[in-house]
Amino acid sequence: MNDVPPQVIAVLGRGLVPADEALLLGDDLGVTRGDGCFDALRVTNDARGVRVHHRDGHLARFARSAARLQLADAPPSAAWEDLIDAWDNPGEAVLKLVLTRGRESVATAPFGYLTLTSVPDYGIARRGVTAVTLDRGHRSDTFTDAPWLLGGVKTLSYAVNVAARREAAARGVDEVVWRSSDGYLLEGPTSGLVFAADDRLWTTPTAGTGILDSVTVAAVFDVARRNGVDTGEALFTPAQARRCDGVWLVSAIRGVLPVTELDGDPLNHDPAVTSVLAVAGGFPPID
Amino acid sequence: MNDVPPQVIAVLGRGLVPADEALLLGDDLGVTRGDGCFDALRVTNDARGVRVHHRDGHLARFARSAARLQLADAPPSAAWEDLIDAWDNPGEAVLKLVLTRGRESVATAPFGYLTLTSVPDYGIARRGVTAVTLDRGHRSDTFTDAPWLLGGVKTLSYAVNVAARREAAARGVDEVVWRSSDGYLLEGPTSGLVFAADDRLWTTPTAGTGILDSVTVAAVFDVARRNGVDTGEALFTPAQARRCDGVWLVSAIRGVLPVTELDGDPLNHDPAVTSVLAVAGGFPPID
Repeated sequence: MNDVPPQVIAVLGRGLVPADEALLLGDDLGVTRGDGCFDALRVTNDARGVRVHHRDGHLARFARSAARLQLADAPPSAAWEDLIDAWDNPGEAVLKLVLTRGRESVATAPFGYLTLTSVPDYGIARRGVTAVTLDRGHRSDTFTDAPWLLGGVKTLSYAVNVAARREAAARGVDEVVWRSSDGYLLEGPTSGLVFAADDRLWTTPTAGTGILDSVTVAAVFDVARRNGVDTGEALFTPAQARRCDGVWLVSAIRGVLPVTELDGDPLNHDPAVTSVLAVAGGFPPID
Repeated sequence: MNDVPPQVIAVLGRGLVPADEALLLGDDLGVTRGDGCFDALRVTNDARGVRVHHRDGHLARFARSAARLQLADAPPSAAWEDLIDAWDNPGEAVLKLVLTRGRESVATAPFGYLTLTSVPDYGIARRGVTAVTLDRGHRSDTFTDAPWLLGGVKTLSYAVNVAARREAAARGVDEVVWRSSDGYLLEGPTSGLVFAADDRLWTTPTAGTGILDSVTVAAVFDVARRNGVDTGEALFTPAQARRCDGVWLVSAIRGVLPVTELDGDPLNHDPAVTSVLAVAGGFPPID
């Protein structure tokens, strides 16, 4: 048996359950169809106590995902509090909310649960990652008027995102940046994209692109605007990205990762800017 | 509580388990990422005993799905026999094989199980269904050289296929036919496509299209060729489909469903031909 990181689990409507107890029936649609949604929040436990980062933004996104799937949103409520109360592990952790449609063979209410799990130290990735672009298979405007494609919904159907990470590993790079079939950089498999260009910060638009709105990018941009830095939305080609002052993959858990190399070409990056963006997102400065 | 249909469940390496017992841990990647594969076989129990239809074809496809996901294939072996031995419900049932990558927070072996569940009577659908075409969001050649998009892999990430069915219901039709962004009919969300044209039977090609190879279409075509009917692969536009002698959605469980109306336009269909194709696939004749 491998080392299991510290983990606590709570089921909505039931409370804490042992982390090694099976929760889901064999015909739960979350398993058999990937039919459900999730969200992931960063939790830190240090001298300032246990803190859940960007809680409101994640809960709002989770509710939007559930609504887009026509799933009744089950607010985590008491189970959430149970979980936080039970957490006494130092360092960083990921709090996952999972909501499935319930059973396949009989109509049931959605099934919801929360897991809180220690995560490894992402300090090295936060200093820089290499990335490859992979074709996502659709154009940058495909999701306009096609709600059944579930663009922008954080579903449990992430097998392609996991496969992309295996492809990156096979190619000897750290990360993937999805590229639309018409040639634009979209997002990472589990992260948003930020560019620095023309004295502004940019991220990729969610309308029509299928891109998930990034809670952490929004938080970083809020801080940036309060400090007088303009922000905007734009699509960049790989060639345009190579001329940017910086490109970052941004995720709630791993943080603000500067992309130092894209498809084998070096990208501009300034550790001081990365450090400012990291702090804006609630992450430690880059030393 | 709603009526639960008769169901038996077996876990690989463990054997039969109670159908109302939870099987999957909260951090199983089959749930949290839809990272795994499945297959579904038709089981009948009548005067000829319990029969699993097209068993070899489904097991071969299941193994191909697992290989494409770089999952070690776990042949169902003893659990399979336990399940069949335990089945004494008359009529039609679906045997599902499910294989997940195992736990997210710690490296484990893949987790596999089988469910055998009674299904409703599909007699009405087997006489005719209405369908709408929905844009699948990619071109018909997108999956060429893009293995990370998992074209042709029967993954657990089926949320978009389920969403398409909700869209069909909202539009008041029975079924969806996926359409590529370059205008070709591809497949149903959980079925293959067959066309009758030019005195031949046709199905849609899997190479480059991302289409899942249909075990039942292959079985029907085998019988057709043995009876002197030529078969081939081709892509059809909706306009071409309207000129065909017949269009069918074909699935292992529901059978050979003639599409009588596509996007509101009537399609040609001959119940006698449907009946021959149904029998070729192992289904009852259409009376």
